[in-house]
This record gives sequence, C-alpha cells and structure tokens, in this order.
Amino acid sequence: MKKLINNPAHIIDEMINGLTKSYAHLVKRIENTTIVISIENAAKVGLISGGGSGHEPAHAGFVGQGMLTAAVCGQVFTSPTPDQILIAIRAANKGHGVFMVVKNYSGDIMNFEMAKDLAEMDGIDVEYCIVADDIAVENSTYTQGRRGVAGTVLVHKILGAAIDQGATLAEVKSLSDAILPHIKTIGVAFSGATVPEVGKPGFALADDEIEYGVGIHGEPGYRREKLQSSADLAKELVNKLNNEFNFQSGDNYALLINGLGSTPLMEQYVFANDVFKLLTNVGINIHFSKIGNYMTAIDMAGVSLTLMKLDNQKWTEYLNYGVKTVAW
Amino acid sequence: MKKLINNPAHIIDEMINGLTKSYAHLVKRIENTTIVISIENAAKVGLISGGGSGHEPAHAGFVGQGMLTAAVCGQVFTSPTPDQILIAIRAANKGHGVFMVVKNYSGDIMNFEMAKDLAEMDGIDVEYCIVADDIAVENSTYTQGRRGVAGTVLVHKILGAAIDQGATLAEVKSLSDAILPHIKTIGVAFSGATVPEVGKPGFALADDEIEYGVGIHGEPGYRREKLQSSADLAKELVNKLNNEFNFQSGDNYALLINGLGSTPLMEQYVFANDVFKLLTNVGINIHFSKIGNYMTAIDMAGVSLTLMKLDNQKWTEYLNYGVKTVAW
Repeated sequence: MKKLINNPAHIIDEMINGLTKSYAHLVKRIENTTIVISIENAAKVGLISGGGSGHEPAHAGFVGQGMLTAAVCGQVFTSPTPDQILIAIRAANKGHGVFMVVKNYSGDIMNFEMAKDLAEMDGIDVEYCIVADDIAVENSTYTQGRRGVAGTVLVHKILGAAIDQGATLAEVKSLSDAILPHIKTIGVAFSGATVPEVGKPGFALADDEIEYGVGIHGEPGYRREKLQSSADLAKELVNKLNNEFNFQSGDNYALLINGLGSTPLMEQYVFANDVFKLLTNVGINIHFSKIGNYMTAIDMAGVSLTLMKLDNQKWTEYLNYGVKTVAW
Repeated sequence: MKKLINNPAHIIDEMINGLTKSYAHLVKRIENTTIVISIENAAKVGLISGGGSGHEPAHAGFVGQGMLTAAVCGQVFTSPTPDQILIAIRAANKGHGVFMVVKNYSGDIMNFEMAKDLAEMDGIDVEYCIVADDIAVENSTYTQGRRGVAGTVLVHKILGAAIDQGATLAEVKSLSDAILPHIKTIGVAFSGATVPEVGKPGFALADDEIEYGVGIHGEPGYRREKLQSSADLAKELVNKLNNEFNFQSGDNYALLINGLGSTPLMEQYVFANDVFKLLTNVGINIHFSKIGNYMTAIDMAGVSLTLMKLDNQKWTEYLNYGVKTVAW
C-alpha cells in the first residue's frame, strides 16, 4: 500500500484540516469535531449530509452557499456518530429547521435518525431523506434495499438551490420526495479500494477483469466479466438504466459520470462520449451533464453513471444554479 | 493495462467529443480539429494553450470566459502540430492578437513557434510565453532547461483574468514576464503513467518506493527513496522550493497542490495540511490555495506542489477572479 498519509488513525483529522485551511473563504471546521461547515450563515433551512469518509470530494466538498450547510465526516467507510451529527444539526439550524440527506446504509440511517431524535428534544425541526439510487443490486453488505451512491450529489445540489431560494423545511421534504425516484445510478469497477487502516484492496479483480455494480465501499456487484471496450461498458450501464426508466424519445435527463477515484479524466471523457451517443440515439435530451470525481471510493478504478429524469423545468434550474463550494 | 477506452488511436477524438458534448454551454470543438474553443466570443485578446494530451483537465478544462480562449490537444504526451495550433490562433483572434502559453518541451516550442510564424504571415499579432516552473531538474528527456508543469494552470488563470478585464496583447506579454519567475513547482511520483498506445507504465517503482521530481510524462526525477510519510514528503518538497524562493516571514504566496492522476483527494488534503503547517510555521501568508487534479500524468500516482510568490496584489485578484470553465 503506497499512500500519501501519515498515521492512518489521523487521516480524517488531517484531511479536514487540509481542506478547511485551503478553502477558508468557503468552509471552516467546527473545532473538536469532524464537521465541515459553510462560512455562509444565512437565515435559511440548514442542509446537512455526511457519512463515512473516503468518498472525497463528497460530502465536505459540497459545503457552501447554494449547496450543503455542513458535512459530517465519519471515519473511512464508517458512519459518523450521532453526537457529531447532532452538533452539525445544531450548528446548521438558524431557526428554520434542518434537512438531512442520508445515503442508504444501515449505520448511517441509525445514527442520523438518532441525532434527529436528540435534536428534536432540543426543539429543532429535522426532516430527512434517504438516497438509494444504486440500481445494481437489491440489499447489500451494509444496506437494506438499494445503496446510496453518486446520485446523492445531485440531491445536495437541487435541495441546496431550493433552500438558497427560500424553500421551507416542508418544501424541501416534498422536493426530495419528488426527485428521489427520478435519480438512478449504476457503476463498474476496474479495481478494489484500499482502506488505509486495512492496507490491501477490499476485493481483487484479475488483470483483465471488471465487475459491474460494485458499491462505493467495494460491496459486491452483479457480474464479473473480461474487460470490455468503453462503448460496451456504456451499453451495459445504459441498458440497466433503461430497464428502470424505460427511455422515450423526447425525454429530458441530467447526467453525471462519476470517477471512482483513480480512473483518469481522459478516460471518463471517452466514456461520456459513448454514453451521449447511446442516449441521443434514442432521442433523449441531456439538459445537464457533469463528468469527474464526485463520489469516489478512495482509490478504486472505475466509473458510475447517474441519470436523473427531469420531469420539472425547475429541477434543471436548480442543477444549474450557481454555488460557492470547493468541488461542485 | 485496464483502461476505460475503445481503440487507443481514437482516444483524443472521443475524449474531445465527450468533453464538448457534456459541457456544450461552455465549450465546443472546432470541427475536424483537436481544438476545444470557448463559446464566449468577446472582442478581446485571444489566449490559447495546449500540448500533449494525458494531462486532463489541462488544458481543455480551462477553456472558457476569464481563462483560455482555446486549447489545442495533441496526441497523448505528444505536441499538437503547427497546422492545428494555427487554426486555434485564427479562431481565437478577434483582431486584438493572440497570446500562447507554451510549456517548456522542445516539440511544443517548435510547433507553437512555427504556428506563430504562419499566423503572422496572415497579419495576426502573436506573442507567447514559455512556462518552465518545474524546479526538480535542469534539462530533461524532452526539455532544454526546466520542464513546464502544473504552474502553467496559474499562468492560464492570471493571464485569462487580465484579458477578461481588457488587457492588451502587450500588457499580457508584460504580465507573463512578470509572473513567470515567481511560479515554481516540484512533484513526487508514487507510480509511473501508462500511455494507452504503449500499454505499460513508463517507469516502474518498487512497492515501497517513491521518486522525487518526476515529470508529467514520467521523465526522471532527482532521487528515489523508500516511501515517506506525507509530512516528510511535504518537508522535502517545501525545502526544495525554499532553496528557490528563500522564504521570509510575512511573504505572500499562492499554493496549488496538484494530484497527478490516481492519488485520492483524501490524501491530497492530508498532504495539504502538512504543507500548510510548514509554510505557516515560517510566517508565510497563503492568499490563494487549490487542491485537486489539474495537470495530471494520465494515471500516475503522486502529487506536485506549486508555489507562486505574490508580489503584486493584482495577481491575487486575478487568481480569485470568477471564470466559466469546466475544471477551474
């Protein structure tokens, strides 16, 4: 394992310090916590997210005006604790309540729900949504139902824009209910991810092998195969998404191609070209697209493809709304 | 070699299409060329750059309002040809002349200079600068003098901001003369880079070995060692930069930590924390900082550290000036 770190036990602490020192005009650390909070302090609904670390820039890179109020960083691939989440809720609350975006992992849900209960005892209104956008498998190592992956970033973006434009807590909840069924993701891994404290990849693939549907913590996917061309990988992932969406000519979509950590941007662009071809060939209109590393799995090689069906013009506007964050 | 591509011979073509389709609101491809050009079309000095591909998001990711007018993409690690550069010059020229930012590689210089000569025969005023920010070694595989690496991105940023605010061609030239001696970079590689057409890494490091000063095409550095902690690596690189800058307490600097391709952002943030500690310990003020993959070497693991001494308040303003690009 060749990692650019000091003591694996101090990674989260040092990572948060590095991030907040480098972008002090946008974010700060709440002292003695693993919380990154926006320096913006407007009297609006608070929007928080978080989860295990190792997915950078998610979630702390999406803190800032127009997106998240705060992100709670757990240890690598480990949910943050309820006490940390509670501190984030309190800090994000400006008297208009706090909305939490939680990825569908059992540990995250338990801890975010516990923090919500504790915050409500303080008289803070808290609502939340659970993102379960990964269509690869039903149930998984750490999940009942589907996993929450890169589509979460689109949820941050849309809810954050709505809040910046003045949405109430109830409106944010209702917006999240509306958008979540329209966001779906599927990925393909070229390698496992190495958790620093473990020191070796969570799973191994042969030199000529890929695995479809692997989770962002290396959870098993649905099929291993010999390495395919970008065009063939795109076809597999787009077909899987079509099984969910049932594409119709003239449909409007947003698209996120997400690098899982060590796949070069050059290759992500090549893959994007194949995805665009497949989608435009069936008459789909892409109104928003983004390519890059947004929800990574440490050093995993591979990509995920997220599509969001845009049934409401407002959602497109929210996606394009200007933000001040490190990584959007 | 496990790459997300189709035919290695078509990577550049497909990469440019993927990029320009995904960000059609910012950039477009000039048909039948490997040029990515801004959709903005203001009557200002044109600013172009380019070079071999494999450094994404450089340079095409920095095309857009406030930064580059156009980027010319060569084959992987290969200079673009003079005819392509000439087309870019013509397209970027709005009657106010064109400035070219060229990294210090013999092939690039030859081809950009030839294009300049051809453009001048058309009556287009062309000026250029050569970025040679890599302090690791004097002369290198493809270079007389020092190599041009990640500091180039800061040159794009500063010159682009000045042009957006109305600088003339002569003013851009004089600004480039002023800033270039103040921008210096040094890197450390954890692995080689694999050019797709070659299929294996350009050089090999043992499992516990790193190399200081490797170039962004895998050119040899200045020392191999056993893997060090992030704090020790930071110390080595900061010391090397100090030999150039001779840090004084109260000095003002900009900082760019650049991932070379497959090093996770989590680790880059840890490294940033170590760099900040060293610099602030000697009384240096950091007025601008950025961390991420800006000038990559395909899938190389490792980072580079760029410092720019800010002797002019205007330079800081240019660095912070708003742009509309894919990747800044």
